[in-house]
Amino acid sequence: MSGTLELLRIRLAEVSDVSRAAGVLGWDQRVAMPPRGTEARADQLATLGRIAHERFTDDEVGRLLEQLAPLEESLPYASDDASLIRVTRRDWEKARRVPSELRERMTRAAARGHHAWVEARRASDFASFLPYLRENVELKREYVECFEWSDSPYTPLLDDYEPGMETTEVREVFAVLRPALTDLVARAPEVDAAFLHGDFPPDAQRAFAERVLSTLGLEDGAWRLDPTAHPFCTSFSNRDVRLTTRYRPDDLESIWSTLHEAGHGLYAHGIDDALQRTPLGGAPSLGVNESQSRTWENLVGRSRPFWEHWYGPLQETFPALADVELDAFVRAINRAEPGLIRVDADETSYSLHIILRFELEQELIEGTVALEDLPEIWNARMQEFLGVDVPDDGHGVLQDVHWSGGGIGYFPTYALGNVISLQLWRVVREALPDLDAQLAVGELLPLSDWLRDNLYAHGRKLTPKETIERLTGSQTIDPAPYLAYLADKVDGLGTA
Amino acid sequence: MSGTLELLRIRLAEVSDVSRAAGVLGWDQRVAMPPRGTEARADQLATLGRIAHERFTDDEVGRLLEQLAPLEESLPYASDDASLIRVTRRDWEKARRVPSELRERMTRAAARGHHAWVEARRASDFASFLPYLRENVELKREYVECFEWSDSPYTPLLDDYEPGMETTEVREVFAVLRPALTDLVARAPEVDAAFLHGDFPPDAQRAFAERVLSTLGLEDGAWRLDPTAHPFCTSFSNRDVRLTTRYRPDDLESIWSTLHEAGHGLYAHGIDDALQRTPLGGAPSLGVNESQSRTWENLVGRSRPFWEHWYGPLQETFPALADVELDAFVRAINRAEPGLIRVDADETSYSLHIILRFELEQELIEGTVALEDLPEIWNARMQEFLGVDVPDDGHGVLQDVHWSGGGIGYFPTYALGNVISLQLWRVVREALPDLDAQLAVGELLPLSDWLRDNLYAHGRKLTPKETIERLTGSQTIDPAPYLAYLADKVDGLGTA
Repeated sequence: MSGTLELLRIRLAEVSDVSRAAGVLGWDQRVAMPPRGTEARADQLATLGRIAHERFTDDEVGRLLEQLAPLEESLPYASDDASLIRVTRRDWEKARRVPSELRERMTRAAARGHHAWVEARRASDFASFLPYLRENVELKREYVECFEWSDSPYTPLLDDYEPGMETTEVREVFAVLRPALTDLVARAPEVDAAFLHGDFPPDAQRAFAERVLSTLGLEDGAWRLDPTAHPFCTSFSNRDVRLTTRYRPDDLESIWSTLHEAGHGLYAHGIDDALQRTPLGGAPSLGVNESQSRTWENLVGRSRPFWEHWYGPLQETFPALADVELDAFVRAINRAEPGLIRVDADETSYSLHIILRFELEQELIEGTVALEDLPEIWNARMQEFLGVDVPDDGHGVLQDVHWSGGGIGYFPTYALGNVISLQLWRVVREALPDLDAQLAVGELLPLSDWLRDNLYAHGRKLTPKETIERLTGSQTIDPAPYLAYLADKVDGLGTA
Repeated sequence: MSGTLELLRIRLAEVSDVSRAAGVLGWDQRVAMPPRGTEARADQLATLGRIAHERFTDDEVGRLLEQLAPLEESLPYASDDASLIRVTRRDWEKARRVPSELRERMTRAAARGHHAWVEARRASDFASFLPYLRENVELKREYVECFEWSDSPYTPLLDDYEPGMETTEVREVFAVLRPALTDLVARAPEVDAAFLHGDFPPDAQRAFAERVLSTLGLEDGAWRLDPTAHPFCTSFSNRDVRLTTRYRPDDLESIWSTLHEAGHGLYAHGIDDALQRTPLGGAPSLGVNESQSRTWENLVGRSRPFWEHWYGPLQETFPALADVELDAFVRAINRAEPGLIRVDADETSYSLHIILRFELEQELIEGTVALEDLPEIWNARMQEFLGVDVPDDGHGVLQDVHWSGGGIGYFPTYALGNVISLQLWRVVREALPDLDAQLAVGELLPLSDWLRDNLYAHGRKLTPKETIERLTGSQTIDPAPYLAYLADKVDGLGTA
């Protein structure tokens, strides 16, 4: 039996190596590649993707999994080996349900859609994007037909990013969030943040970001930080973590962008050695992964204790802040101001942008709205949710890349990440009663180590809900801690 | 028949994509990768290498080649399609002769050997490296047994880097070169080059290098230049060329290092679109490729006309050169000074370092010297060839990385490149009678375009000797132009 498991591991290591190699090509494409390398790079990525898919979905993997069923049953559920067999089987069965020709049509439609979207957004011309969006949506409808679902055809799409999560559950969570967030945004006071726009030289931002990063628990020689247009994090092993960020010379957003990506990076860095080169060497879901980027960006990076330590160094780095008090700075970075653009949204209004997209995605897949009505519905809901008027589709329905490439079902993971981050944060606070005092003297390792040992190290062994249960005692996705946290934040903004 | 050719092309494109992807991982490893990524990267590269090898050496490729024999015979020899079938068959038959298990033993021995060499060189301890070198040499002897040869068991090793070249031919060329070069080095006058050591800020070196590079014919958006410890050039398509160089703050060697790599880069950049994603998308051999790096580094980059244009900008960039006359500068960069280290050798003495290694490699493979005698023989020949005393093995037999990783047969390509560069340069001069005048005003495109159209564009369609014949009318590797060029150089050093 151990021989069979070893054969499975060899195959999975090969698939992982090819996927990680594709990851290197993707990082290079976004960080280093000369622009004219695009065409050849697309070929190389398509070939690696096809090889990884073929090797993984092979009949042989199914035979090995079948032979390993008795071993799996004899082992504890959360053991490395039982988890490997269980998660591999789930992934394999899901991947096998989709015919190659459908997969290829989706890939081609996504490439065309992305291309059309770039132009459409630039021109704020939804009509020119419509046929490509239609093709992508129709292919997604074909895709969900490969699966069974009980509540909504949207569930198989959601399951690609949040394994085991159903549309109904997310809908219930968002039904609580939506009115509460709209109310919070409406009642948030105006806060002076003019000093956050000024002269902040990118080199100094970079030096500050690297200084903060060196305290988070990322080991020396196991990561790097590069500038890019659209920040992301990727990793090629738990000891080769690539963070990216964006420096704008007139604001300090790179700080939170870097902390956000560092959260993803700490996750990848913390996954056990034993799970490397297997399907378990990742996070349980995008939402759980995002809960950690949000933890480091917001729960840590916008907290007063964190800045009690770091505000002095920040003021030394940027003389423009010399006369700004710590309290004023902390209020400014926690302000709530409804806006048009998701990626520029503050912490309080952010999830409202997501809920709007989640609703529209379901309606598109369930066929209850017509595609050509999207801009109108978008604009109406932006007014309803956030009280803002959308001037044009470039600042509205065309603003995000996701739908253009067929990424439907992805958006809700952002808001779920926010919700989950606070559920886990309650557990963290109980485990680390001195956390605020530690943050206030720049000691981030107790937090980082706890999260690594209790969450990151376990990789993808458990589903998102099993992960939440292991830490909180319940599988429920509970929005209450998140709403309480935001209410505290908003109510605190008025105090001087 | 065209359907069969298309099937072959699809397979070869896949193999090329995987190999190019491995190239991206290799570039990243040397330019960007955090040091702790090493172990996972080795796994990823081994997996990609195995997949490319398996897909290429597959029986199916042989069947397709067999079916394509009639098509090949019906087409002109140098046509794209006939060349594709011919070169693929040659590569396939060669690759199939080596059992996988031998290949894997060689790979593992190379990794161990490299590791041992790093330590041995640091400690200048040949004895500690000896067992690893022995293992690598013995595996190479096993490797050559997979092939047939007529003159020397060294020929199959040489053929890996110089397809179609026999040991005897190289021996004859080097028999002419050796005494002539020793004589030239001995009679070269001393030249003042003290001003080439000074304060040359790396940022300024980089700016100057990029300024020169932008005039060579590398199209915008199709290349980049990065710093690295051991400069190299790689490419992932003809429109994604990666140059690297090394900046030392106290000399200007980065100029010639950059021009050298740019020669390789221009080759890769000039290969026809039609040959991309096939085995023809490279240079005919390492020697022919090296002829072009040497052309740009030396024949262009150390020529007086080139510096008539560029010396003014160089002086503006580096005030330390303000009082140095152009003539003095050109003499200094063309001086001949025998030394211990190959990679630091001047143009005149360089090939003597190579001939020494070529002789030893043959003797090792033919079994006519004992491995433990290598340091002694090395030191004696350094005295005989170059008149220098080797103080320790770190500055002698242990200085190069090649043998540690089983790279036996590679060295002669460096000297062949020098010889070939001058054979082709004669043709260039006939074709471009105004070349010196063009160089003197910074016009490098006529040269670059000619080399692209007449050499680079043809990729690997012809063998090295066929390539030389196409351009010079004869397959002979003729050292006379190279010796005449060096004699002119050395004799010119004495004139003020």
